[in-house]
Amino acid sequence: MSNTTTSWVPIPPGSHFSIANIPFGIISTEERPAPVPAVAIGEHALDLAQFATGNGFSGLDNISSHLNVFSEPTLNGFAALGRPVHREVRAYLQDVLRSDTQFGRILKDNEELRQKSLIPLNKVQNHVPMTIGDYTDFFAGVNHASTMGRILRGAANPLQPNYLHVPVAYHSRSSSIIISGSQFHRPSGQVLQDPTAEVKEPKFSPTNRLDIELELGVFLCRENKLGVPVPVNSAEEAIFGAVIVNDWSARDIQAWEYVPLGPFIAKNFATTISSWVVLADALEPFLTSSLQRDRQMLPYLQEKRVENVWDIQLRVDLKPSNGPITTLSRTSAKNVVWSFAQMLAHHSVGGCNMRVGDLLASGTISGTEHGTQGSLVEQNKGGKEVIQLNGGLERKFLEDGDSITITGWCGHDQNALVGFGDCSSLILPAVQGD
Amino acid sequence: MSNTTTSWVPIPPGSHFSIANIPFGIISTEERPAPVPAVAIGEHALDLAQFATGNGFSGLDNISSHLNVFSEPTLNGFAALGRPVHREVRAYLQDVLRSDTQFGRILKDNEELRQKSLIPLNKVQNHVPMTIGDYTDFFAGVNHASTMGRILRGAANPLQPNYLHVPVAYHSRSSSIIISGSQFHRPSGQVLQDPTAEVKEPKFSPTNRLDIELELGVFLCRENKLGVPVPVNSAEEAIFGAVIVNDWSARDIQAWEYVPLGPFIAKNFATTISSWVVLADALEPFLTSSLQRDRQMLPYLQEKRVENVWDIQLRVDLKPSNGPITTLSRTSAKNVVWSFAQMLAHHSVGGCNMRVGDLLASGTISGTEHGTQGSLVEQNKGGKEVIQLNGGLERKFLEDGDSITITGWCGHDQNALVGFGDCSSLILPAVQGD
Repeated sequence: MSNTTTSWVPIPPGSHFSIANIPFGIISTEERPAPVPAVAIGEHALDLAQFATGNGFSGLDNISSHLNVFSEPTLNGFAALGRPVHREVRAYLQDVLRSDTQFGRILKDNEELRQKSLIPLNKVQNHVPMTIGDYTDFFAGVNHASTMGRILRGAANPLQPNYLHVPVAYHSRSSSIIISGSQFHRPSGQVLQDPTAEVKEPKFSPTNRLDIELELGVFLCRENKLGVPVPVNSAEEAIFGAVIVNDWSARDIQAWEYVPLGPFIAKNFATTISSWVVLADALEPFLTSSLQRDRQMLPYLQEKRVENVWDIQLRVDLKPSNGPITTLSRTSAKNVVWSFAQMLAHHSVGGCNMRVGDLLASGTISGTEHGTQGSLVEQNKGGKEVIQLNGGLERKFLEDGDSITITGWCGHDQNALVGFGDCSSLILPAVQGD
Repeated sequence: MSNTTTSWVPIPPGSHFSIANIPFGIISTEERPAPVPAVAIGEHALDLAQFATGNGFSGLDNISSHLNVFSEPTLNGFAALGRPVHREVRAYLQDVLRSDTQFGRILKDNEELRQKSLIPLNKVQNHVPMTIGDYTDFFAGVNHASTMGRILRGAANPLQPNYLHVPVAYHSRSSSIIISGSQFHRPSGQVLQDPTAEVKEPKFSPTNRLDIELELGVFLCRENKLGVPVPVNSAEEAIFGAVIVNDWSARDIQAWEYVPLGPFIAKNFATTISSWVVLADALEPFLTSSLQRDRQMLPYLQEKRVENVWDIQLRVDLKPSNGPITTLSRTSAKNVVWSFAQMLAHHSVGGCNMRVGDLLASGTISGTEHGTQGSLVEQNKGGKEVIQLNGGLERKFLEDGDSITITGWCGHDQNALVGFGDCSSLILPAVQGD
């Protein structure tokens, strides 16, 4: 599709939801509180339940026996139809929405259906778009892993011996995944009274080291049966689309609890995702090469394609309750050593079955320069330095009332951006005393 | 209820499913392939969908508006009704099934409903009984943790500094939980070519160190909202019932992958659970004290009750394809330092929301003596010694064709056991070559 394609729906320049995008989400409104599928276009959502009921899909034969998926409260049904169907539906909606549409009768010139189905985004409530069976968080951001290794273990061997061989990951918590715009309370838990003392004694406290983790996530659209691994070169067909993920982390709780089984309370209190799932098809023009490595990988991880990660521009903004916005970080989602296809091949290599709606996240994505790092603990060098904010404020870690907004987009033509909108949450004070 | 209570349904002595038990499960049969709730009694299942349809619950007023839960394909709906309802339904079913029942018209003397609803267990297929949102595996078996610490780090400090303070846990994989009787393939993955070499180089291989983990698990029946921790002294009301869990582990894959985020491929290929959920109410007479500790615990973990864990007798049997059964281990579920109430209080202390159907498992349960350990890696001292089996066979780790059956029961009166039946799986050869 040409970058110059325009829509008859007004789309302001710089919109993340150009006609080149067509991301899918789950919405409700005050008048129609039951969550239903939708796509975003410019400053509107197109309610697909209303669109389907109003014969909106009458121009696309292949979907007619599956219209029920557009009245479901999650995207699982639509996702399970598979990538060839996603491609057709997205292309059809682009055709319906383009200025020179041949389907004017469907929506452009159908005032009744337009009124019912095209809703300003500011009247829309977004919901977690998938029923997420399992959520797995990887550690593919090699710059983050290196910086953390230098902070924790010194400069000699920043990466663990397994790092460049194994797509390291841990199972994370799916229940506490929240949608952009949701607030959450600062978590409490066990932290060390004195981390330098020889005898380790914990106390109960709200975390004093609340941090972000800038990540990209993908939802899966294809299951594999238990015992049947997904080959790396067909793994792409299982990837429905992507969201931005903020894997909030309590560094002091994490430091005390994580040996030997990994992070638990430090990360299970909330994970924010952006509202709209950008389809893998929409991201395909932005494929590029992942970071290079000096180790050979085992055959089950070797992809035939060379361009296997998306060059998505990412930005992290902090808005304190009492001050202006500061941009903390700018980087790209290409700063990883494993593609999602490789992560999926590894995840299933021992036979683990994946389900439609499962979420795989990249792990923290960082560049190597100052101002490109996807967590505060990297920017403050393990809590040792202060981060200067605009308005004369400063931070080591996040304070109550802080809002973090992560955003991401592909492309440079301001009329053809493929973007994610916001992944945003406000931090409320801790509620638990004990 | 007296131990001498008998049922008009024939129950052989030693049955795990005495009238003192009444465990809940999900079954199907050849004639009725749609999974429905049931209870086990002796050598029969009572199909609760048929029972409800045939006015079986007409003697229990309080359930009449909730009968729909007995036609659902999982126990989530029934569990969500809460423990007071579980208590009433279990007591009512005991009344209906006892020899001197006052409800003879309901089932005992109602041949039509008996024929429809009372099904021999050997004609029944069991299914995973709950939709499991998240599965969390703890590490509460202190004897296992100590033995593993001695094997991995030497005798000086077998427990990590956090162990007696934090109910250590990791998020595990819910998709690969399978029901007793299911088979699975030996997993393949990355293992070290030579664990003693200075430069660590992995190879792709079927695991050579396939192991068991003897655990107890509980399903939850009450949700808490995000940001609202469950107080330890009301956590019991969120515990629906228990199953035996075998958390299969590939020790060679685990050793290479687990730093720094914990086990992943080594444990996500399969977890077997027993078929019938023994209600927390049925286990209440068998409460006892957990293992004592020499550390003060933080207030959020302190229970008012003293007896907080169940004294469930546990036994692990290995049946090789070419030899007789060997009992590998006998121990009790009381060999833990944290109760499930404490695990739940900890899990939610930072605000993590739990959902009905979530599974919490204890971690490996071991005694301290030879023949009481819940994993092979403890019995073979980290792979160094051979375990002698009956019939002149021996093992270090499990071989293809081996079956492991774990079972558990409470009580000594052979006519009033509260048991779990089998938690059993057969190991198939690896399928993946690469």
